[in-house]
Amino acid sequence: MKKYSLALHGGAGTILKNQMNPDLEEQYKKALNEALKCGLDILDKGGSALHAVEEVVVTLEDCPLFNAGKGSVFTHEGHHEMDAAIMCGTDLNAGAVCLVRRIKNPVRLAKLVMDSSPHVLLAGPGAEAFARSHGMEWIDEKYFFTEQRFNQLQNALEENKISLDHDHSSERKFGTVGAVAFDTQGQLAAATSTGGMTNKRWGRIGDSPIPGAGTYANNESCAVSCTGTGELFMRSVAAFQVHALMKYAGLNLFEACYKVVHEILPSIEGDGGLIAIDNKGEICLDFNTEGMYRAFGNSDGTIGIEIYQR
Amino acid sequence: MKKYSLALHGGAGTILKNQMNPDLEEQYKKALNEALKCGLDILDKGGSALHAVEEVVVTLEDCPLFNAGKGSVFTHEGHHEMDAAIMCGTDLNAGAVCLVRRIKNPVRLAKLVMDSSPHVLLAGPGAEAFARSHGMEWIDEKYFFTEQRFNQLQNALEENKISLDHDHSSERKFGTVGAVAFDTQGQLAAATSTGGMTNKRWGRIGDSPIPGAGTYANNESCAVSCTGTGELFMRSVAAFQVHALMKYAGLNLFEACYKVVHEILPSIEGDGGLIAIDNKGEICLDFNTEGMYRAFGNSDGTIGIEIYQR
Repeated sequence: MKKYSLALHGGAGTILKNQMNPDLEEQYKKALNEALKCGLDILDKGGSALHAVEEVVVTLEDCPLFNAGKGSVFTHEGHHEMDAAIMCGTDLNAGAVCLVRRIKNPVRLAKLVMDSSPHVLLAGPGAEAFARSHGMEWIDEKYFFTEQRFNQLQNALEENKISLDHDHSSERKFGTVGAVAFDTQGQLAAATSTGGMTNKRWGRIGDSPIPGAGTYANNESCAVSCTGTGELFMRSVAAFQVHALMKYAGLNLFEACYKVVHEILPSIEGDGGLIAIDNKGEICLDFNTEGMYRAFGNSDGTIGIEIYQR
Repeated sequence: MKKYSLALHGGAGTILKNQMNPDLEEQYKKALNEALKCGLDILDKGGSALHAVEEVVVTLEDCPLFNAGKGSVFTHEGHHEMDAAIMCGTDLNAGAVCLVRRIKNPVRLAKLVMDSSPHVLLAGPGAEAFARSHGMEWIDEKYFFTEQRFNQLQNALEENKISLDHDHSSERKFGTVGAVAFDTQGQLAAATSTGGMTNKRWGRIGDSPIPGAGTYANNESCAVSCTGTGELFMRSVAAFQVHALMKYAGLNLFEACYKVVHEILPSIEGDGGLIAIDNKGEICLDFNTEGMYRAFGNSDGTIGIEIYQR
């Protein structure tokens, strides 16, 4: 039997057990489990890592609990601006979109950019025009309305009145979803998707859609998907750092992830975490915050669904 | 006397001496020399590497010969969409903008994002709103009209009628400008600015505004600015690769640049070049194309202005 493995995340941040409602915790675990099963099924049938990470991220995008796709937060102007990326470790091909508003599953559009254009990163209305020109439907922005996210925006706007420099992410939860996979052919892939930051302005783009920053895959080393304070992950080139530490400094997956999450990112005050799989199928889920919604599984039947620090 | 050094580029590609008009060659050399002098003057007076690269890139943006700022190429829809980034090697701070249309000097806006926002990358109308909210003027898009670029678009549109898959960059010149500097305080900085690709569609973003891809600076190793087939530089995380090869694999500046330009990029068919300076002030200008507009100088009085391969 050939080996495969999969990991996914639904964001990191201040997630404290004593502040979590048991019903809500159950909802999160159920959603993480559903996404995990979806990916493991694909890999078990011999499907590619690339296909698995796309479908896992679609499942997470369709769940209103996570800040991506359906559950995307509101921008300052009351819109939803979503970013996503996908990368194939076999040929280093990558596709990404940012600031899209009318695409149900941004990760599918990222895959379309990878497969059907000479480009890597398309933005905003241009990316949406590309989608339509390839037969991908636009969705009414109302689809992305959820009361919880709307209330979060009202709270953020309220706080803004008091202090413009206030850290907007009052709940300190970095809403992003992502997946990494190792398939039976020995291939790696990574995908990440996000609804950005509540009360986000100025067409801000974070690390999620940037190959090397929030998303990276290379069969020579590992596949990585990040979640956290996006600007710090960009400046650290966080996902690629894991690759570089493995390939050039000779670290193993766990050492490389530890160095990025607990040394390099904190050195510039970067908070968050990442999930990674190496080219032997080893899985690492590491974060420097109180919690990270995460799940993992492999061909040995090992399965884990976790939220808090161990 | 303390050491300083500076390098700049005005794009790489198929630049053949036998196709160059001597008058035009003189114009290019004059423009490269003017930008070089501007940067060396700043460094000679003890100015920072960060200030030097910003002013050098402004000088190149203001020159209609190069595809950035004033000389930006036309998009498919007849607009100009510009990208720029700046990064400081001392604190790894970075600022970048993409798809801006009404900003005379995109690198100045990138610097403003770095200095006056918690963000790294702002896009399009949002980035322009940020500029205005900080007192930066918008410019009429007519400023960016040049007959040469307009004719290039008409040619590209004409070619498009024949083949949609045709390589649009018929002249195979990767229009980007950039600068890297090492100052008397031992600090490194990098900046890059581009007008993108003629006939560009769909809100395409290349490597130039992405920290790690087209622009990177870190006092521990080097400052890098790239020019070339942007998508391949993004997938290679080209600028950060130079840093990683120096820091983790122990290569010197020249070995690291050689590996990126002549091995890593060509392995996925990436064409172009880069300029880099290490934290001892050594300068490397390397490219895998026929030419690269480039200039360099240092505190020893060494000066070079070159276009073709040696």
